[in-house]
Amino acid sequence: MIILGIDPGYAIIGFGIIDTSKNNAVIDYGVITTPKDDSISLRLKNIECALCSLFETYKPEAVAIEELFYFKNQKTIIPVAEARGVILLTAQKYCKNIFEYTPMQIKQALTGQGRAEKQQIQFMVKNILGLKQIPKPDDAADALAVALTHAQTSPRLNTNRV
Amino acid sequence: MIILGIDPGYAIIGFGIIDTSKNNAVIDYGVITTPKDDSISLRLKNIECALCSLFETYKPEAVAIEELFYFKNQKTIIPVAEARGVILLTAQKYCKNIFEYTPMQIKQALTGQGRAEKQQIQFMVKNILGLKQIPKPDDAADALAVALTHAQTSPRLNTNRV
Repeated sequence: MIILGIDPGYAIIGFGIIDTSKNNAVIDYGVITTPKDDSISLRLKNIECALCSLFETYKPEAVAIEELFYFKNQKTIIPVAEARGVILLTAQKYCKNIFEYTPMQIKQALTGQGRAEKQQIQFMVKNILGLKQIPKPDDAADALAVALTHAQTSPRLNTNRV
Repeated sequence: MIILGIDPGYAIIGFGIIDTSKNNAVIDYGVITTPKDDSISLRLKNIECALCSLFETYKPEAVAIEELFYFKNQKTIIPVAEARGVILLTAQKYCKNIFEYTPMQIKQALTGQGRAEKQQIQFMVKNILGLKQIPKPDDAADALAVALTHAQTSPRLNTNRV
Protein backbone atom coordinates (compact mmCIF):
# COMPACT_ATOMS: atom_id res chain seq x y z
CA MET A 1 0.00 0.00 0.00
CA ILE A 2 1.26 3.46 -0.92
CA ILE A 3 0.81 5.90 1.98
CA LEU A 4 1.11 9.68 1.74
CA GLY A 5 1.99 11.27 5.08
CA ILE A 6 1.39 14.99 5.53
CA ASP A 7 2.64 17.45 8.13
CA PRO A 8 0.13 20.30 7.77
CA GLY A 9 1.05 23.98 7.54
CA TYR A 10 0.47 26.97 5.29
CA ALA A 11 4.03 28.32 4.83
CA ILE A 12 5.62 24.87 4.70
CA ILE A 13 3.85 21.53 4.29
CA GLY A 14 5.83 18.34 4.71
CA PHE A 15 5.04 15.26 2.63
CA GLY A 16 6.42 11.73 2.67
CA ILE A 17 5.41 8.75 0.54
CA ILE A 18 6.19 5.15 1.43
CA ASP A 19 5.23 1.77 -0.02
CA THR A 20 4.37 -0.85 2.61
CA SER A 21 4.37 -3.64 0.01
CA LYS A 22 8.08 -3.01 -0.51
CA ASN A 23 9.15 -3.06 3.15
CA ASN A 24 8.24 0.62 3.65
CA ALA A 25 10.40 1.80 0.75
CA VAL A 26 10.59 5.58 0.58
CA ILE A 27 9.15 6.74 -2.74
CA ASP A 28 9.53 10.48 -2.22
CA TYR A 29 9.61 13.14 0.46
CA GLY A 30 9.96 16.90 0.64
CA VAL A 31 8.06 20.09 1.33
CA ILE A 32 5.56 22.37 -0.37
CA THR A 33 6.29 26.02 0.41
CA THR A 34 4.22 29.15 -0.21
CA PRO A 35 5.61 32.73 -0.43
CA LYS A 36 4.78 34.81 2.64
CA ASP A 37 3.89 37.84 0.53
CA ASP A 38 1.06 36.02 -1.24
CA SER A 39 -2.48 36.30 0.14
CA ILE A 40 -3.68 33.35 2.22
CA SER A 41 -6.21 32.53 -0.53
CA LEU A 42 -3.50 32.33 -3.17
CA ARG A 43 -1.30 30.27 -0.86
CA LEU A 44 -4.17 27.82 -0.35
CA LYS A 45 -4.63 27.53 -4.12
CA ASN A 46 -0.93 26.84 -4.59
CA ILE A 47 -1.00 24.21 -1.83
CA GLU A 48 -3.93 22.50 -3.57
CA CYS A 49 -2.11 22.61 -6.90
CA ALA A 50 1.07 21.05 -5.48
CA LEU A 51 -0.95 18.36 -3.67
CA CYS A 52 -2.88 17.47 -6.83
CA SER A 53 0.43 16.92 -8.55
CA LEU A 54 1.57 14.56 -5.74
CA PHE A 55 -1.70 12.59 -5.84
CA GLU A 56 -1.58 12.28 -9.64
CA THR A 57 2.08 11.21 -9.65
CA TYR A 58 2.05 8.69 -6.82
CA LYS A 59 -1.63 7.65 -6.50
CA PRO A 60 -1.51 6.97 -2.74
CA GLU A 61 -4.08 4.51 -1.38
CA ALA A 62 -4.12 6.08 2.09
CA VAL A 63 -3.37 9.54 3.49
CA ALA A 64 -2.11 10.02 7.05
CA ILE A 65 -2.14 13.53 8.49
CA GLU A 66 -1.15 14.96 11.84
CA GLU A 67 -4.00 16.18 14.05
CA LEU A 68 -4.04 19.81 15.19
CA PHE A 69 -4.65 21.13 18.68
CA TYR A 70 -5.82 24.66 19.28
CA PHE A 71 -3.73 25.18 22.40
CA LYS A 72 -0.53 24.64 20.42
CA ASN A 73 0.66 27.55 18.27
CA GLN A 74 -2.37 29.76 18.93
CA LYS A 75 -1.01 32.50 16.68
CA THR A 76 -0.92 30.29 13.61
CA ILE A 77 -3.68 27.78 14.35
CA ILE A 78 -6.22 29.51 12.07
CA PRO A 79 -4.14 29.64 8.86
CA VAL A 80 -2.68 26.18 9.59
CA ALA A 81 -6.22 24.79 10.00
CA GLU A 82 -7.32 26.60 6.82
CA ALA A 83 -4.50 24.87 4.94
CA ARG A 84 -5.40 21.57 6.60
CA GLY A 85 -8.95 22.02 5.28
CA VAL A 86 -7.57 22.31 1.75
CA ILE A 87 -5.36 19.25 2.33
CA LEU A 88 -8.34 17.18 3.57
CA LEU A 89 -10.50 18.38 0.66
CA THR A 90 -7.84 17.37 -1.89
CA ALA A 91 -7.26 14.02 -0.18
CA GLN A 92 -11.01 13.35 -0.20
CA LYS A 93 -11.13 13.93 -3.97
CA TYR A 94 -8.24 11.63 -4.82
CA CYS A 95 -8.14 8.96 -2.17
CA LYS A 96 -10.92 9.02 0.49
CA ASN A 97 -8.91 6.81 2.91
CA ILE A 98 -7.79 9.57 5.25
CA PHE A 99 -6.52 8.99 8.77
CA GLU A 100 -5.31 11.37 11.43
CA TYR A 101 -2.85 10.77 14.21
CA THR A 102 -1.98 12.80 17.27
CA PRO A 103 1.68 13.65 17.99
CA MET A 104 1.44 11.21 20.91
CA GLN A 105 0.22 8.39 18.67
CA ILE A 106 3.10 9.06 16.27
CA LYS A 107 5.65 9.01 19.10
CA GLN A 108 4.12 5.84 20.50
CA ALA A 109 4.10 4.06 17.12
CA LEU A 110 7.71 4.91 16.32
CA THR A 111 9.45 4.72 19.67
CA GLY A 112 7.10 2.79 21.92
CA GLN A 113 6.57 5.76 24.23
CA GLY A 114 4.35 8.81 23.82
CA ARG A 115 6.77 11.37 25.23
CA ALA A 116 9.74 10.83 22.94
CA GLU A 117 11.86 13.79 21.85
CA LYS A 118 11.81 15.09 18.29
CA GLN A 119 15.36 13.86 17.67
CA GLN A 120 14.39 10.36 18.77
CA ILE A 121 11.48 10.32 16.28
CA GLN A 122 13.75 11.49 13.48
CA PHE A 123 16.31 8.85 14.37
CA MET A 124 13.62 6.15 14.21
CA VAL A 125 12.29 7.47 10.87
CA LYS A 126 15.81 7.17 9.43
CA ASN A 127 16.37 3.69 10.87
CA ILE A 128 12.99 2.12 10.12
CA LEU A 129 13.03 3.47 6.57
CA GLY A 130 16.65 2.44 6.03
CA LEU A 131 17.81 5.94 5.08
CA LYS A 132 21.42 7.01 5.24
CA GLN A 133 20.58 10.36 6.82
CA ILE A 134 17.75 11.96 8.74
CA PRO A 135 15.39 13.47 6.11
CA LYS A 136 15.50 17.25 5.92
CA PRO A 137 13.80 19.61 6.54
CA ASP A 138 12.03 18.58 9.76
CA ASP A 139 8.60 18.93 8.12
CA ALA A 140 9.47 16.19 5.61
CA ALA A 141 10.75 13.94 8.42
CA ASP A 142 7.50 14.60 10.35
CA ALA A 143 5.45 13.67 7.27
CA LEU A 144 7.38 10.40 6.87
CA ALA A 145 6.79 9.76 10.59
CA VAL A 146 3.01 10.04 10.20
CA ALA A 147 3.05 7.85 7.07
CA LEU A 148 5.05 5.27 9.00
CA THR A 149 2.65 5.53 11.94
CA HIS A 150 -0.19 4.56 9.63
CA ALA A 151 1.87 1.71 8.20
CA GLN A 152 2.65 0.43 11.71
CA THR A 153 -0.77 0.84 13.29
CA SER A 154 -3.36 0.42 10.53
CA PRO A 155 -3.17 -3.40 10.41
CA ARG A 156 -4.07 -3.45 14.10
CA LEU A 157 -6.27 -0.42 14.54
CA ASN A 158 -8.03 1.11 11.57
CA THR A 159 -9.54 4.11 13.33
CA ASN A 160 -9.02 7.88 13.37
CA ARG A 161 -10.61 8.14 9.97
CA VAL A 162 -11.38 11.79 9.08
CA MET B 1 -21.21 44.99 -8.21
CA ILE B 2 -22.45 41.59 -7.05
CA ILE B 3 -21.11 40.73 -3.59
CA LEU B 4 -21.22 37.30 -1.99
CA GLY B 5 -21.10 37.47 1.81
CA ILE B 6 -20.17 34.34 3.74
CA ASP B 7 -20.55 33.44 7.41
CA PRO B 8 -18.03 30.59 7.77
CA GLY B 9 -18.74 27.28 9.51
CA TYR B 10 -18.57 23.56 8.80
CA ALA B 11 -22.02 22.39 9.96
CA ILE B 12 -23.82 25.47 8.67
CA ILE B 13 -22.43 28.14 6.33
CA GLY B 14 -24.44 31.30 5.74
CA PHE B 15 -24.43 33.01 2.36
CA GLY B 16 -25.97 36.25 1.13
CA ILE B 17 -25.73 37.83 -2.31
CA ILE B 18 -26.48 41.49 -3.01
CA ASP B 19 -26.16 43.75 -6.05
CA THR B 20 -24.82 47.21 -5.24
CA SER B 21 -25.69 48.50 -8.73
CA LYS B 22 -29.36 47.93 -7.90
CA ASN B 23 -29.42 49.71 -4.55
CA ASN B 24 -28.18 46.65 -2.67
CA ALA B 25 -30.94 44.42 -4.04
CA VAL B 26 -30.92 41.00 -2.39
CA ILE B 27 -30.34 38.35 -5.04
CA ASP B 28 -30.32 35.30 -2.79
CA TYR B 29 -29.51 34.18 0.72
CA GLY B 30 -29.56 30.97 2.70
CA VAL B 31 -27.37 28.32 4.26
CA ILE B 32 -25.26 25.37 3.20
CA THR B 33 -25.50 22.54 5.72
CA THR B 34 -23.49 19.34 6.10
CA PRO B 35 -24.64 16.16 7.90
CA LYS B 36 -22.92 15.67 11.24
CA ASP B 37 -22.42 11.95 10.62
CA ASP B 38 -20.25 12.58 7.55
CA SER B 39 -16.47 12.75 7.94
CA ILE B 40 -14.96 16.23 8.03
CA SER B 41 -13.27 15.55 4.67
CA LEU B 42 -16.59 14.68 3.03
CA ARG B 43 -18.24 17.72 4.62
CA LEU B 44 -15.49 19.93 3.18
CA LYS B 45 -16.05 18.41 -0.26
CA ASN B 46 -19.78 19.05 -0.02
CA ILE B 47 -19.17 22.64 1.11
CA GLU B 48 -16.91 23.19 -1.92
CA CYS B 49 -19.52 21.66 -4.23
CA ALA B 50 -22.31 23.91 -2.91
CA LEU B 51 -20.08 26.99 -3.14
CA CYS B 52 -19.08 26.20 -6.73
CA SER B 53 -22.75 26.12 -7.58
CA LEU B 54 -23.27 29.57 -5.98
CA PHE B 55 -20.28 31.06 -7.83
CA GLU B 56 -21.40 29.60 -11.16
CA THR B 57 -24.98 30.75 -10.71
CA TYR B 58 -24.41 34.32 -9.48
CA LYS B 59 -20.85 35.14 -10.63
CA PRO B 60 -20.04 37.46 -7.70
CA GLU B 61 -17.37 40.10 -8.35
CA ALA B 62 -16.32 40.30 -4.68
CA VAL B 63 -16.45 37.93 -1.73
CA ALA B 64 -16.71 39.24 1.85
CA ILE B 65 -16.09 36.78 4.69
CA GLU B 66 -16.08 37.12 8.44
CA GLU B 67 -12.69 36.87 10.14
CA LEU B 68 -12.11 34.15 12.76
CA PHE B 69 -10.53 34.54 16.18
CA TYR B 70 -9.04 31.59 18.02
CA PHE B 71 -10.22 32.73 21.44
CA LYS B 72 -13.85 32.51 20.34
CA ASN B 73 -15.34 29.01 20.16
CA GLN B 74 -12.12 27.17 20.94
CA LYS B 75 -13.84 23.81 20.64
CA THR B 76 -14.87 24.36 17.04
CA ILE B 77 -12.17 26.74 15.80
CA ILE B 78 -10.20 24.00 14.00
CA PRO B 79 -13.04 22.53 11.86
CA VAL B 80 -14.47 26.04 11.27
CA ALA B 81 -11.05 27.23 10.07
CA GLU B 82 -10.69 24.09 7.92
CA ALA B 83 -14.00 24.95 6.25
CA ARG B 84 -12.92 28.58 5.91
CA GLY B 85 -9.81 27.35 4.08
CA VAL B 86 -12.04 25.56 1.57
CA ILE B 87 -14.20 28.69 1.24
CA LEU B 88 -11.15 30.89 0.57
CA LEU B 89 -9.76 28.36 -1.92
CA THR B 90 -13.04 28.25 -3.85
CA ALA B 91 -13.36 32.04 -3.79
CA GLN B 92 -9.80 32.37 -5.10
CA LYS B 93 -10.62 30.12 -8.06
CA TYR B 94 -13.76 31.95 -9.08
CA CYS B 95 -13.35 35.55 -8.03
CA LYS B 96 -10.00 36.54 -6.48
CA ASN B 97 -11.44 39.72 -4.89
CA ILE B 98 -11.74 38.42 -1.36
CA PHE B 99 -12.11 40.63 1.69
CA GLU B 100 -12.42 39.82 5.37
CA TYR B 101 -14.11 41.81 8.10
CA THR B 102 -14.01 41.46 11.86
CA PRO B 103 -17.29 41.28 13.80
CA MET B 104 -16.47 44.77 15.11
CA GLN B 105 -16.07 46.17 11.58
CA ILE B 106 -19.41 44.64 10.60
CA LYS B 107 -21.14 46.17 13.63
CA GLN B 108 -19.51 49.52 12.98
CA ALA B 109 -20.47 49.53 9.29
CA LEU B 110 -24.10 48.64 9.91
CA THR B 111 -24.95 50.46 13.13
CA GLY B 112 -22.22 53.08 13.55
CA GLN B 113 -20.91 51.46 16.71
CA GLY B 114 -18.67 48.43 17.21
CA ARG B 115 -20.47 46.97 20.21
CA ALA B 116 -23.97 46.60 18.79
CA GLU B 117 -26.08 43.60 19.77
CA LYS B 118 -26.87 40.80 17.33
CA GLN B 119 -30.54 41.83 17.15
CA GLN B 120 -29.56 45.37 16.21
CA ILE B 121 -27.39 44.07 13.35
CA GLN B 122 -30.23 41.89 12.10
CA PHE B 123 -32.66 44.83 12.30
CA MET B 124 -30.27 46.96 10.23
CA VAL B 125 -29.77 44.16 7.66
CA LYS B 126 -33.55 43.99 7.21
CA ASN B 127 -33.92 47.78 6.97
CA ILE B 128 -30.97 48.60 4.72
CA LEU B 129 -31.85 45.77 2.34
CA GLY B 130 -35.55 46.68 2.36
CA LEU B 131 -36.67 43.21 3.44
CA LYS B 132 -40.06 42.56 5.03
CA GLN B 133 -38.62 40.28 7.69
CA ILE B 134 -35.28 39.56 9.33
CA PRO B 135 -33.61 36.87 7.17
CA LYS B 136 -33.52 33.44 8.77
CA PRO B 137 -31.58 31.51 9.93
CA ASP B 138 -29.10 33.79 11.75
CA ASP B 139 -26.20 32.50 9.63
CA ALA B 140 -27.87 33.84 6.47
CA ALA B 141 -28.50 37.22 8.15
CA ASP B 142 -24.84 37.29 9.24
CA ALA B 143 -23.73 36.57 5.68
CA LEU B 144 -25.89 39.42 4.33
CA ALA B 145 -24.40 41.65 7.04
CA VAL B 146 -20.84 40.99 5.88
CA ALA B 147 -21.83 41.49 2.21
CA LEU B 148 -23.43 44.79 3.18
CA THR B 149 -20.33 45.76 5.18
CA HIS B 150 -18.26 45.36 2.03
CA ALA B 151 -20.80 47.39 0.04
CA GLN B 152 -20.72 50.17 2.64
CA THR B 153 -16.98 50.31 3.28
CA SER B 154 -15.23 49.25 0.08
CA PRO B 155 -15.66 52.60 -1.72
CA ARG B 156 -13.89 54.27 1.18
CA LEU B 157 -11.50 51.63 2.40
CA ASN B 158 -10.48 48.82 0.11
CA THR B 159 -8.37 46.87 2.57
CA ASN B 160 -8.55 43.57 4.45
CA ARG B 161 -7.86 41.65 1.28
CA VAL B 162 -7.14 37.96 2.01
